[in-house]
Amino acid sequence: MQIEIVAIGNEVLAGITVNTNAAFISRILSRRGYSATRHIVIPDDREGIRKNVVEALARSELVIATGGLGPTIDDLTREAVKGLFDTQPVSLPNHVGTALGLAYFANGKGLILLPGVPREMEEMFAKEAISWIERHFIPPFEHVYSFSLCLFKESEIDPYLRDLKNEHPEIDCGIYPARGTLRIVLRSRNKNLHEIGKRFEEKFPTFVFHEASIQRAVHKELITKKQTLALAESCTGGAITASLVALPDTSYFLLGSFVVYSNEWKEQFLGVSSATLRNKGAVSRETVEEMIHGIFTQTQADFAIAVSGIAGPSGGTPEKPVGTIYIGIGKRRERSDIGKIFVPQDRQSALDSCVQTALSALWRRIVYNEPSFT
Amino acid sequence: MQIEIVAIGNEVLAGITVNTNAAFISRILSRRGYSATRHIVIPDDREGIRKNVVEALARSELVIATGGLGPTIDDLTREAVKGLFDTQPVSLPNHVGTALGLAYFANGKGLILLPGVPREMEEMFAKEAISWIERHFIPPFEHVYSFSLCLFKESEIDPYLRDLKNEHPEIDCGIYPARGTLRIVLRSRNKNLHEIGKRFEEKFPTFVFHEASIQRAVHKELITKKQTLALAESCTGGAITASLVALPDTSYFLLGSFVVYSNEWKEQFLGVSSATLRNKGAVSRETVEEMIHGIFTQTQADFAIAVSGIAGPSGGTPEKPVGTIYIGIGKRRERSDIGKIFVPQDRQSALDSCVQTALSALWRRIVYNEPSFT
Repeated sequence: MQIEIVAIGNEVLAGITVNTNAAFISRILSRRGYSATRHIVIPDDREGIRKNVVEALARSELVIATGGLGPTIDDLTREAVKGLFDTQPVSLPNHVGTALGLAYFANGKGLILLPGVPREMEEMFAKEAISWIERHFIPPFEHVYSFSLCLFKESEIDPYLRDLKNEHPEIDCGIYPARGTLRIVLRSRNKNLHEIGKRFEEKFPTFVFHEASIQRAVHKELITKKQTLALAESCTGGAITASLVALPDTSYFLLGSFVVYSNEWKEQFLGVSSATLRNKGAVSRETVEEMIHGIFTQTQADFAIAVSGIAGPSGGTPEKPVGTIYIGIGKRRERSDIGKIFVPQDRQSALDSCVQTALSALWRRIVYNEPSFT
Repeated sequence: MQIEIVAIGNEVLAGITVNTNAAFISRILSRRGYSATRHIVIPDDREGIRKNVVEALARSELVIATGGLGPTIDDLTREAVKGLFDTQPVSLPNHVGTALGLAYFANGKGLILLPGVPREMEEMFAKEAISWIERHFIPPFEHVYSFSLCLFKESEIDPYLRDLKNEHPEIDCGIYPARGTLRIVLRSRNKNLHEIGKRFEEKFPTFVFHEASIQRAVHKELITKKQTLALAESCTGGAITASLVALPDTSYFLLGSFVVYSNEWKEQFLGVSSATLRNKGAVSRETVEEMIHGIFTQTQADFAIAVSGIAGPSGGTPEKPVGTIYIGIGKRRERSDIGKIFVPQDRQSALDSCVQTALSALWRRIVYNEPSFT
């Protein structure tokens, strides 16, 4: 089954907006056993929209268009597709904004028009459009099993997936790196997929989670277990904490974070000794250990994360090259788990990896009381 | 001139990766007076790649393909396009990774093959491919003038752009919202564009910046003026600080940030009085004022930012609905500039707006000593 996503938007073509709408729709389709087979982005122009939708409908069973739908004058897309279907469309309600969505179906072909504003589009697609699709098209893969793995590299999982594929050639296996964790998606018509998937994930005990992100997994565990968290971030500059705060209900567990970017702050607010900073350096196991000690001394937190590293591009030395980051996971009254990671990538990727690795290690400590570094 | 960007990638079609490559390429093209007229995303499949590149070359003068290029076996794209051009391609060096890029030109048509890894692609496009394009194609708009505006809404700029367009119909005007700031792009064959643009931006004194983001503008000012910054973040959870730390050289000016998510931490580490928290609430002008006072008392910072708000989805009251955020900008020994913004959007958008607004107000305070809220 061919599915095309057509985004209508000059801002996307100008590179000002990234086409997150297509990514969102594709992700939901994939989870329900469908696959997007093409994305296109075209200008806000009535003739062009019509021409492209006609071409897309010739190639594909289902065309999903985003953008160019408004409550009034800029209702470009609806005008552009007029007469393509001789059946009446179904309205898709908008719970967030005012533009209505539309879904047309005739002769085995479907066309869905969605607004371009991501908030409105996402709500409408996830709540309304996907069920419409399921009523009109049987998914090529009726069964989907997915899970995420933390602290694993893609190359470490490849051999396992190859074995699975040999044993079950009918299973479609996908492995998708998502900012430091991996998402494994198995899809099949085999109705035993659930059991096969369950057995497969048991090869990776204590590394598997089912939430949409490691942040959500950490949220869930801390809230369920009624435990609190405090952080001390140097190189990440607050990014670990901010990635947790991006989700609601953080106040149930988060006390706060010391973003101690300068050495003076490490001493003044966390009590890291000047001797340690002088002799071992700010990027060292000892400094991170003292940062954790500082958190537990000064706050009531049950768990702690501390990080210090060199994200680059400058500041590296032969002994501690750019990409060297120490991560510590603390649990009150227990031994800390402290380790070094080496992420010699560009600054933003190195910081992202550090965020994901620190939260993965924290999650394993909370759930299994397992150290990840020592 | 028609330009198509063809991304080859199953991860993009599965929605696991967002097509940032197309956005990056489009942005650079736009700045050099070109416009991408279509983006497409297709699967990693040799026959499909060939078919789509052939179709794209029939429609467009220039086709830029990303992905499917590797040092060895997964060199799909190069194989797929074999024989489409009877001229030899030019190699585009890769300064970051190993996959080489290729550029073909014949009979007024061009084809560029780039790697899919964003870091490698970006470096190769910005350093190598764009000059190759400029040698082979005259841009439709030879002159480009752009600037960014902080603390303005799109609807507030629209009338000004309409006036400009009336006076200079030959100018192509674009207004692109980018996370709380606006980018204005004027393009024309008129060689007086620079003077026209300069005069136009003077309508918005103290709100115009030319750096790629407000973060870069803040970096530049603090480093040039040798001033230091400390922050106190509640609702944003470290996101303002992290957005600065994402750029290199933050250590020249950033001391650190108190992410005081809980009220206890606001009292304990910043000295906010329990009476203020009880009587006025954590989300109040008074609390933010005391947070700034706490920063200046406890640290050596020259400038300070403090924020406290209700990002939602829960926690709102009739008096302080979700989206109410207080922002304070402090300058040592001077009066603070404190104000309320109201951003009743989803949580992530509200937090993003807060980050951009706070940094915009800080920037105006550093450069012009202008208050933005009071």
